[in-house]
Amino acid sequence: MPLRRSWVQSANDPGGAFPLNNLPFGVFDDGMGARAGVAIGDNVLDLGAMEGLSMVPGAGFRTGALNDFMAEGPGMWERVRNTLTGLLAEGSAAESQLADVLIPDAMVTMQMPFAVSEYTDFYAGRHHASNVGTMFRGADNALPPNWLHMPIGYNGRASSVVVSGTDVRRPWGQLKGPKFEAPIFAPSRRFDIELELGAVVGQPSTGPISVATADEHIFGYVLLNDWSARDIQAWEYQPLGPFQAKATATSISPWVVTRAALEPFRCAAPEREKELLPHLKDVGPMLYDIDLAVSLQPEDGSEEIISRTNYREMYYSAAQQLAHHTTSGCPMRIGDLLGSGTISGPERENRGSFLELSWGGKEPLELAQGGSRTFIEDGDRLTLSGSAQGDGYRVGFGTCTGRVLAALEDPFA
Amino acid sequence: MPLRRSWVQSANDPGGAFPLNNLPFGVFDDGMGARAGVAIGDNVLDLGAMEGLSMVPGAGFRTGALNDFMAEGPGMWERVRNTLTGLLAEGSAAESQLADVLIPDAMVTMQMPFAVSEYTDFYAGRHHASNVGTMFRGADNALPPNWLHMPIGYNGRASSVVVSGTDVRRPWGQLKGPKFEAPIFAPSRRFDIELELGAVVGQPSTGPISVATADEHIFGYVLLNDWSARDIQAWEYQPLGPFQAKATATSISPWVVTRAALEPFRCAAPEREKELLPHLKDVGPMLYDIDLAVSLQPEDGSEEIISRTNYREMYYSAAQQLAHHTTSGCPMRIGDLLGSGTISGPERENRGSFLELSWGGKEPLELAQGGSRTFIEDGDRLTLSGSAQGDGYRVGFGTCTGRVLAALEDPFA
Repeated sequence: MPLRRSWVQSANDPGGAFPLNNLPFGVFDDGMGARAGVAIGDNVLDLGAMEGLSMVPGAGFRTGALNDFMAEGPGMWERVRNTLTGLLAEGSAAESQLADVLIPDAMVTMQMPFAVSEYTDFYAGRHHASNVGTMFRGADNALPPNWLHMPIGYNGRASSVVVSGTDVRRPWGQLKGPKFEAPIFAPSRRFDIELELGAVVGQPSTGPISVATADEHIFGYVLLNDWSARDIQAWEYQPLGPFQAKATATSISPWVVTRAALEPFRCAAPEREKELLPHLKDVGPMLYDIDLAVSLQPEDGSEEIISRTNYREMYYSAAQQLAHHTTSGCPMRIGDLLGSGTISGPERENRGSFLELSWGGKEPLELAQGGSRTFIEDGDRLTLSGSAQGDGYRVGFGTCTGRVLAALEDPFA
Repeated sequence: MPLRRSWVQSANDPGGAFPLNNLPFGVFDDGMGARAGVAIGDNVLDLGAMEGLSMVPGAGFRTGALNDFMAEGPGMWERVRNTLTGLLAEGSAAESQLADVLIPDAMVTMQMPFAVSEYTDFYAGRHHASNVGTMFRGADNALPPNWLHMPIGYNGRASSVVVSGTDVRRPWGQLKGPKFEAPIFAPSRRFDIELELGAVVGQPSTGPISVATADEHIFGYVLLNDWSARDIQAWEYQPLGPFQAKATATSISPWVVTRAALEPFRCAAPEREKELLPHLKDVGPMLYDIDLAVSLQPEDGSEEIISRTNYREMYYSAAQQLAHHTTSGCPMRIGDLLGSGTISGPERENRGSFLELSWGGKEPLELAQGGSRTFIEDGDRLTLSGSAQGDGYRVGFGTCTGRVLAALEDPFA
């Protein structure tokens, strides 16, 4: 599919994130209250205002979250996408009428795009699981025996999901070095990122749903950084999994790129090393070809890319994760967020966490501007970005960024 | 403290659950819509109607959940409790006026008492952790090294929390017996209960809170049964903890017994085997003396108690769990539910799960009416009950019951 040209000229830039082919949904505030919008070039189209003017269907755009719109269902999602595609296309008669509801992105502050009902984080990248498993259990036992049979996941903490741009405070927690008899309570020394994509559940379910059906429940995707305190995690995670190590913050990008916009970029999952059980089998190309990158910006203001990878490196798709999530009868709700798991590729420069990049802190990452990193230092800004490359255009996610602040001096003050 | 006598005669029964000393909050429906109420003897006092009549402060009682009332804060909780204590006391002039807002409990259906924001389940009972650890890792390694230093917990699934009385469908899941090469997808064969108390968070927080402060954030407690598929859990739980094994359902009692009502029953936690870190230290008697029991009612209608234990068997209190929960900066919200962890006592008859009662299925539990159980069978009804014994009265929780239905024939149909 080629670029769909828009009368919004900045949307036709082949290097831009938000052409007419994309139309991601988000929630913005320009000082007049939070409402839904769509990104187009360097602008935000004010869906709240358009709903008030009956230029789009009444679908909850004047609320400060996309949940009501998602609740309207896939038919409405498609109808609104088609309406906007027509209104914004080159030659559309609506151009003059829309001038008042097109706001330069520099004039708005992006908000949380939806109320997160619950947040589940998976561990479904083969390279990440192998890397972490090798570090902790040796190369021969890198993958747990269940890993090739199901997308392993755990329940994360929805209350700690924040929108890109929110500062993240280095957490305190129980740490226990191998040489110490007892744990201490101190700021995390191994604070880390996890480069992930988050799938946004847009339709509810009350019982098991198949992989094919599950895909239709997914409204779209966001960039997701699951901030992780590796030293807290190492001490707490046996036997019930990560808890406080992953509860400080999870950042997501403000724009939800719809499943419809990603459809041209579908690609097959890796070859299955073990045959999947029937209810988890691929029903077509399950993944998307989405280039992803992480940049580090220390306090000195320099910036460099420290990792490049691609979403097609995943072993399990979001649809397979969602189907697995419902096998027990677990009810799913609109606004559930499913983290893909860390997306690492085969080489060192493709690793999606400092834990992997510095191999557990043993091989510091040398920075081009000088200095090095094993884990995040206070003042560092970490930024995820991602886009799918089309024919003369890109479907971009924008960025998901967060700066790490020094730990509190006394957390109980 | 002795029995506070009420003009509601059934509230003065020394064996009853709901004397004037108790006044637990819940949400009921008598066909006229869900609203808040308080249990008194065999009746429900209609707080929604009383709010409409300005007999109690306007505190969200006409909504179908206690969240708005909890949001009003501890000052309001106390004010309403004091008002109701006066109105319902023997000799109160309000007796005739209240006749219209006192509804026999047989006329109402109890609803979910509050909207569960997030659900966290702990593993903070010493006997349970030792029993399970001994079964899985041997007696010498029963307790994980972190267990005596922090209340180990994991995030559960809020969407699967249901009110007492809701039937529970036996789940399907991935099962892998030790003799099999690959897992199968089948109904759970080791479906189980977990006898717990749930603490209801009634005030929000955005950073670490101390044990003393944390206690003031707890509105009250419910009985909680964390239904668990042990065979699904055994295969899935490494390395990230329980997921689908615990996502079918968690049942809670409809009445939230307030912290104020439990105050006379405070008792000390067990002696600390390792000194707790300063931020987790006891700040007084941290637990409550609450007798708990589990009864089994098979399809033949017979019923017998299969376990008796007490909440004072816990190692960590809810306040310590909540303080630990916030150490990372994890935001807590009104309606967060914290499961205590399974409450087992020292003897076999004190064990709070079939896993422990039948020692992993190896020592079937013989039933008085004939037959035996290793785990739950289809049609079995399991009922938790609990009460604190005062001087001539009891502060009861009522019951938390659920019947297990046969698994679906085809979960994806």
